[in-house]
Formats: sequence, C-alpha cells, structure tokens
Amino acid sequence: MSKVTVLGAGAWGSTMAQVLSDAGNHVLVWGRNQEIVNEINTSHTNRKYLDENVLPLGLSATTNLSEAFEYSNIYVLAVPAQTLRENLKSWKPLVDSDATYISTLKGIEVSTLSRMTEIVHEEMNTENVALITGPNLATELILRQPAGAVAAAPTKILAEKTLKLFATPYYRVYTSTDVLGCELAGAIKSVIALAVGISIGMGFGENTQAMLITRGLNEVARLCAAHGADPLSAAGLAGMGDLVASCGSPLSRNRTFGEVLGRSGSMAVAREHVAKTVEGVASSNAVLEIAHRVGVEVPVIEAVADVVAGTISPSDALDRLMEITTRAENFIR
Amino acid sequence: MSKVTVLGAGAWGSTMAQVLSDAGNHVLVWGRNQEIVNEINTSHTNRKYLDENVLPLGLSATTNLSEAFEYSNIYVLAVPAQTLRENLKSWKPLVDSDATYISTLKGIEVSTLSRMTEIVHEEMNTENVALITGPNLATELILRQPAGAVAAAPTKILAEKTLKLFATPYYRVYTSTDVLGCELAGAIKSVIALAVGISIGMGFGENTQAMLITRGLNEVARLCAAHGADPLSAAGLAGMGDLVASCGSPLSRNRTFGEVLGRSGSMAVAREHVAKTVEGVASSNAVLEIAHRVGVEVPVIEAVADVVAGTISPSDALDRLMEITTRAENFIR
Repeated sequence: MSKVTVLGAGAWGSTMAQVLSDAGNHVLVWGRNQEIVNEINTSHTNRKYLDENVLPLGLSATTNLSEAFEYSNIYVLAVPAQTLRENLKSWKPLVDSDATYISTLKGIEVSTLSRMTEIVHEEMNTENVALITGPNLATELILRQPAGAVAAAPTKILAEKTLKLFATPYYRVYTSTDVLGCELAGAIKSVIALAVGISIGMGFGENTQAMLITRGLNEVARLCAAHGADPLSAAGLAGMGDLVASCGSPLSRNRTFGEVLGRSGSMAVAREHVAKTVEGVASSNAVLEIAHRVGVEVPVIEAVADVVAGTISPSDALDRLMEITTRAENFIR
Repeated sequence: MSKVTVLGAGAWGSTMAQVLSDAGNHVLVWGRNQEIVNEINTSHTNRKYLDENVLPLGLSATTNLSEAFEYSNIYVLAVPAQTLRENLKSWKPLVDSDATYISTLKGIEVSTLSRMTEIVHEEMNTENVALITGPNLATELILRQPAGAVAAAPTKILAEKTLKLFATPYYRVYTSTDVLGCELAGAIKSVIALAVGISIGMGFGENTQAMLITRGLNEVARLCAAHGADPLSAAGLAGMGDLVASCGSPLSRNRTFGEVLGRSGSMAVAREHVAKTVEGVASSNAVLEIAHRVGVEVPVIEAVADVVAGTISPSDALDRLMEITTRAENFIR
C-alpha cells in the first residue's frame, strides 16, 4: 500500500485515482477547480466529468499544490498533454527530488515533437519516469469493466512497481521496458483512428477499416523499429489494443471528427461539428515529421496529415493509398 | 491475364470469382447447384448468396467437374473447410498434375487438426499451394469496397504470382512466405471473435473487447512462434486485420453466437439462435489441442473451449482470465 498523488481532476485523472484507490493505495487528487475538489471531498462525485458515479470514499482532493506534492512521492500525471511542460515548470520548486513520475498521457508535444516522458526527463531531471497506457476509455473503466494496460518503464523494477500500484481484479496490468515503443504507439493511434473515422464517413465498412487499422499499425511498428523500439509494442495493448478501442467507440473524438470529415469532405465542417481539441488532427503533422526524420514511409499517416492540412480530399487520399504498390507484408526485420 | 477455375459458387466463391475477373483473368466457377450455375450464366447474379449484385458479364459457371478442371490449371478453393478433403479425393482423377492450388478457406479440419493447405499437400501430392486471406467480408468485397489481403505461399515466386492474380484497384494484396503463420492466424481468429462476442453479450464495452482482441492475438503470435512461424503474421492482415473485421461486423456468426452465449450463459440457447455452423465453436477445442501440443499456454482460447464444452460459465471463465498473474507483455522472443 502506497501513498499516491494524482495531478489532474478531470475524467481521466479521477478515473485513474479510483483505480489506484481500488488497488489499495491512499490517493490524493490535485485539481485547479475548487468546486470539483469540494465535490470529490464531500459528495464523492465529479458530475462534470463522470456523471453520477460514486468515487471511493477514501479518495480526497485538494487545490493546494504544496499539499499535493507533500502527500506522497509518487506523482501520477493526468493533465492535458500540451500543458504538461508548463505545469512541470511551475511545479518544480515544490516536488520531492526523489519522486517517481507516472505519465497517463497520450500525445506528442506538437511544438517540440517530444514524448510525454521525455518532457518529464527534461524538465524534472530524473530517470524515475514510467507510463501506463492501453485501451482504457474512462467511461468504461470508471464502471470497473475488465480492462488491460501496459506499465512501461526504463527498468523492470520500475515497471513492476507501477504494475503493483495500479493492478486490481478488473484492471490487468502487463509490464514492458519499451517506453519508447509504448509511448509512440499510444500517441500515433489517434492519427490512425482519424483515418478509420474518415473511411466510415465515406461509407465503407469493416474491410476498409480493418485494412487501415492493420496497415496503420504496420507503419507504427516500422516507425518504432526505426527508433530502436520493439515493433511488437505496436501489436500490444498500447498500440493495437488502444486503437481498436478508439475505433470501436462512438464517443471517440478522433473517430467522430473523421466521420464528419469523410462524409462532408470539409475540415471546416468537421471543426464546426467537433469543437474540442482532436488529438489526431493536432498531431498528424508532428507524427509525420517524426517518421520522416528516421526515413520511414508512412502512407496512411501521411494521407491523414495531408487531408488535415487541406491539400488533398479524403477521396483523393484514399485513391492515392490504393495506388501504392504492395509488397511483402512484414518487412520490419 | 490467366485462366482461373474457382471451385465453389457460394457467397465467397462468387465474390472471389468477381475479384479475379476484375483483376483481368478469365474465370470459370464450378458449383454443384444447377440453378445457381444457370443464374450466373444467364442473369449474371447469384441471388441466393449475393442479393441483386450483378457479377462481371465475362464470368461463366459450370456444374461439370471435367470442364472445370480442363479450363485452367489454377484452382481457387472456395468449398466449405470441413468438406475440402473429401472434395479433393473425388477431384483427384480429373485435375491437371501441374496445377496450382490457392486456398481461400479459413479453418482447421477438426478430425485431424490439419490446416487447409496441409490437406491439399496430403491429398494432391503437390507443393504448388498458396493461400489468400485477410479481412474480407464477402458482403463488402462484392461491392468493391477497399480491402487488403495477404497472399502467402512457400516461395516468393508463388506468393507474387498469387498477388498478381488477385490484385485490383480496390483489393490490395501483400505477399508473405509465412504460410503457417497466416493460415493459423486466420483459423484461430474465429475463436477469439467468439470470446469478444461473449464479452459484448455480458454487457462489456470497448476496453474489454480490445483487451481480449490484443491478448488473444498475443496467444496466436506465441502459438505461431512455437510452430516456427513468424509471430508478426498474427499482427498482420491475416490475424489482427481479419479479427478486427469479424468483431466489428454484426453479421459475423462468431460474434453473434458469442453475444447470445454471453447474455444467456447457455450454449443451448445460443445454438438455437444461430442454427448454422459457427467456426469458433467447431474449432475451439482443436485450436486448444494445437496449442497444447507445442506447450503454449493460451488462456483466452482455453476459456472459449471450456465455455463451448459447457464445463464453465462465461462469467466464471472471465473471472478465471482476470485472476491469471500478469507479466511482461511481449515474451515471444
């Protein structure tokens, strides 16, 4: 049993806090919003993000950063990906220097092409950084539906420590020492999910979706391999698993945005329909750049980036994809 | 441009015949049913299996086996998997001894645990056997929706010959020399699709499905590796791709059967609901035996086999799965 601080009191932070509490830890959630923090402490709900779900009674929350960082030396990061660096900068004077950081974020910092754990390394000057990732929609995990995840860390010891923190009877956590592969796979899946959404919007069925998912993950695997990561991470919970869950969920923003885009052929219409940030839209160009830096061809990702940039229509992008000469399916090794 | 004989005039044989015709080949379809054969020749439809879809006008059909085997020396197999051996035995006196066989079948011969291409080797005494497999629902492929597939053969030359026979602008064919891996992955996916269906029937969402798909395919990959096949084939179109399409389709018998089974907890109720042969039900025990012969643990497949055998309820099977100790995610190598 450990003491854990969860940084972020949105849907995802609150859900992770419940998992950690169910796993037997003492958990304190930090959030900016005083109303939400009060609600967690008094009525044990977070209605803005999690409807009527009742959180574990032992779970408490605070808006006080000093209190949050004094509470424990295990910091679980659940703030929006693009705000991580500025948050870390502001937190630095308060943190325990021996702290362990566990990222639950998926995404690439668009301005620098950095992964989330890289940002923690850079800003906090520490190697004690793990991540937990996988097919974990908050709406289902909060109901304690069976789910799987990967705890990845630079060392087996830290990966296993992370596993122990999170594992519950409904949350199966596997370990990995392939931080790079698991993190890249989790970040890139939103771009592939967008491609799948576009194909649905264009009126295509399971065959086309399955082709895009499989060939898209093949691109992720090749990209991981070119970076020295394990291509099999793309075929695991962080890659395939997460992508399948995103593509299957009608609540997924990437899929929904893609559907409108595929149906209308218009980025403007899609942006109007989905007002919030769509990770696959925000990061498709960054992901393409990450691939091109290591000389890997990623036609599905490139098609999405070009459609998002407005330089090609969804239907021309599909035609272009279908014209590429096929060759051996697996040419990673 | 080649001459090709398609053996089987059901939904799948007729769809493959259309693809082959679209790819520029001369195609003759053999079927047992005189009415269907006449309908293909006169009105260019196959309403029993393919509704009002109009087949290519150049496509002809016959019930005459001698004519079928004299027409070409490329035989595309599209008869039911469990009848392949008896068909081959009866065809043997008529076939061209230099013929190339291309299996389009998915399944394991339950009585012998043989794969489809193994049966062709055994019965026809030839090495000229390829297979084509992937996420290809007939109902979508007949509409020429974009789809991908793998042509696998013992030699690169035969794999590429198969690719050229089938490739069309809407049908992207990749090559592989991993016949064993592609064929095993295609056969086993029905068992995993059944597991996914059961979880849907039990009321679980995308997280649980994605976990079963990913961990199920991990079992397929390990099983392939233990047989000397490429574990990455499980992550390709033959494995992941086909499984994702099956799980996404409400028309999939494996998924539908699983859903009724998961909801009712009763094999009898599920059998009543889905009167036809369900591949995952028929082959789960055979697949389990294939795994145990090489000492590979396959908890998801074993759970399905036990539920199908009636020795455990779906909910007890899930509890058993969730209790297994987790470890490193990828331990194939």
